[in-house]
Amino acid sequence: MQPLVVAIVATLLAGSVAGAADPLPSWNDRAPKKAIVEFVGKVTKAGGPDFVPPAERIATFDNDGTLWAEQPLYFQFLFALDRVKALAPQHPEWQTKEPFASILKGDMQSLLAGGEHALLEVLAATHSGMTEAEFMKTAKEWLATARHPTTHLLYTEMAYQPMIELLDYLRANGFKTFIVSGGGIEFIRAFAERVYGIPPEQVVGSVGKQKFEMQDGKPVLLKLPDVLFIDDGPGKAVGIGMFIGHRPIAAFGNSDGDLEMLQWTAAGTGARFCLFVHHDDAKREWAYDRDSKIGRLDKGLDEAKVHGWTVTSMKDDWKTIYVGAR
Amino acid sequence: MQPLVVAIVATLLAGSVAGAADPLPSWNDRAPKKAIVEFVGKVTKAGGPDFVPPAERIATFDNDGTLWAEQPLYFQFLFALDRVKALAPQHPEWQTKEPFASILKGDMQSLLAGGEHALLEVLAATHSGMTEAEFMKTAKEWLATARHPTTHLLYTEMAYQPMIELLDYLRANGFKTFIVSGGGIEFIRAFAERVYGIPPEQVVGSVGKQKFEMQDGKPVLLKLPDVLFIDDGPGKAVGIGMFIGHRPIAAFGNSDGDLEMLQWTAAGTGARFCLFVHHDDAKREWAYDRDSKIGRLDKGLDEAKVHGWTVTSMKDDWKTIYVGAR
Repeated sequence: MQPLVVAIVATLLAGSVAGAADPLPSWNDRAPKKAIVEFVGKVTKAGGPDFVPPAERIATFDNDGTLWAEQPLYFQFLFALDRVKALAPQHPEWQTKEPFASILKGDMQSLLAGGEHALLEVLAATHSGMTEAEFMKTAKEWLATARHPTTHLLYTEMAYQPMIELLDYLRANGFKTFIVSGGGIEFIRAFAERVYGIPPEQVVGSVGKQKFEMQDGKPVLLKLPDVLFIDDGPGKAVGIGMFIGHRPIAAFGNSDGDLEMLQWTAAGTGARFCLFVHHDDAKREWAYDRDSKIGRLDKGLDEAKVHGWTVTSMKDDWKTIYVGAR
Repeated sequence: MQPLVVAIVATLLAGSVAGAADPLPSWNDRAPKKAIVEFVGKVTKAGGPDFVPPAERIATFDNDGTLWAEQPLYFQFLFALDRVKALAPQHPEWQTKEPFASILKGDMQSLLAGGEHALLEVLAATHSGMTEAEFMKTAKEWLATARHPTTHLLYTEMAYQPMIELLDYLRANGFKTFIVSGGGIEFIRAFAERVYGIPPEQVVGSVGKQKFEMQDGKPVLLKLPDVLFIDDGPGKAVGIGMFIGHRPIAAFGNSDGDLEMLQWTAAGTGARFCLFVHHDDAKREWAYDRDSKIGRLDKGLDEAKVHGWTVTSMKDDWKTIYVGAR
């Protein structure tokens, strides 16, 4: 290119990125924001000692509790409960069969007393027996209409504004952003592109078995009730290896289920960034950590201290919580 | 942008793409090349009836027999045989234990007589019991040094020049290119970026179970001998659903193991492109189809005729076969 043209193009590109002086306006000017900006600055500084080429700028994000809220229950589970109610007329046996009977009576105590086995049974009953396309349609309809029991927002409106700014900021700096969630991969794909700007092929999650078959001469993928892979805890490091195939240089979580993802990220060579979102804002969101049944952050808080990982306080570091209507 | 600047930028961009008048120089000017160029033209024509936005321009490629050769045996299996020989000193029991004894004696007939069970045992013995990083190192070393028994080329030199041009051409037109292979996902990742320009996160393949564990305080992913997922035949459609999460608009294969991938691709709405590479060049490569044990193309040939899919003749349509040293 000619120098004049280069200058024009450079000015145009710079204008589009740096036009907003502060790329993280919903973050207060405190240590976590400074640490993020400093990390991004050093890995993108061409010729600098910490420079990372764009192909290796992989950042992974947990979803529940990190990119959107997760109380009083994981939102996908609230979807499953609504599905049980919607499907009940086709399943008269559910009126007396646990754990469905408790759900239909609204008796959450009895449901939760059934433990993990009861929860998996609910997920299997509501997440299989249909094609993948039918499931996506149902999930999208629910996300477009169902409202959270206490905030009365759409669930996608409960994505965190500061984290969406962070995703945008990383991508503007050449990062490829992935979700690595314990949640079901299809459920997340039903909204991740629209809400987070993350396309389906950059969503890693738990996976159920599927079967390819012909229905009326048309191929479909049928969702089966069996689990293939759980992308949680140590499974997050395994899932990153399987789906992404290289190690992230930055990882973001909020619970002990994200610990191995952060350990795996931190153990690479060169500059690394690990962050836990700390739910300490009972007024604007929820406050929970070491003793919570949902999103427990206990061992993670200890490890963060030992390794110098960033812990961001929702109360002190975030000006806004929810993205709201977009 | 101002009109003058727009014009300058447009000229620059056009120059970088269209500078090479023929984007597929190793393809003869016959029907398959014309069909490819016509398809790309119509899905990229803004405002046209067949326009597909870039995010949906997903193209999937089989690897063995489609992007590189696969005779006399899948190259990954030749790698496994070399590993058995290299590891034999640490396994004195292999001298008398099948299928290893046959491999060490060079008796391929007896090995193949052991059927699929014997082959899986060889793969398990050579593809597990090490960390994922150690495996990648071994695979890369083999690919950098081992030579094919009859061509005496490095295996990566036996990638197909016309297909590499096709990958480049699709990417230059906003496509995202993926490998969807029955081969092991890590083995392919060991060379796919360098040879095909396909990064690790765009490789879908068969997957073994892995375990996250701490070794001397450092996290590792340990490769286990169990299979998690076979990405072949109907598994290719399932693998596309799981890893990519949207349906390709173009798919490229060479065997009946790719049939369901092509069916899945063809069944979407809008413009679609499906192609089989037909191995009919005994002089420059190999000639095989309906009766081959490796890369059998039988049902696929029939389906291609019924549905009007493109079948490209290596003999007639390709000026060059192998990419050679790069």
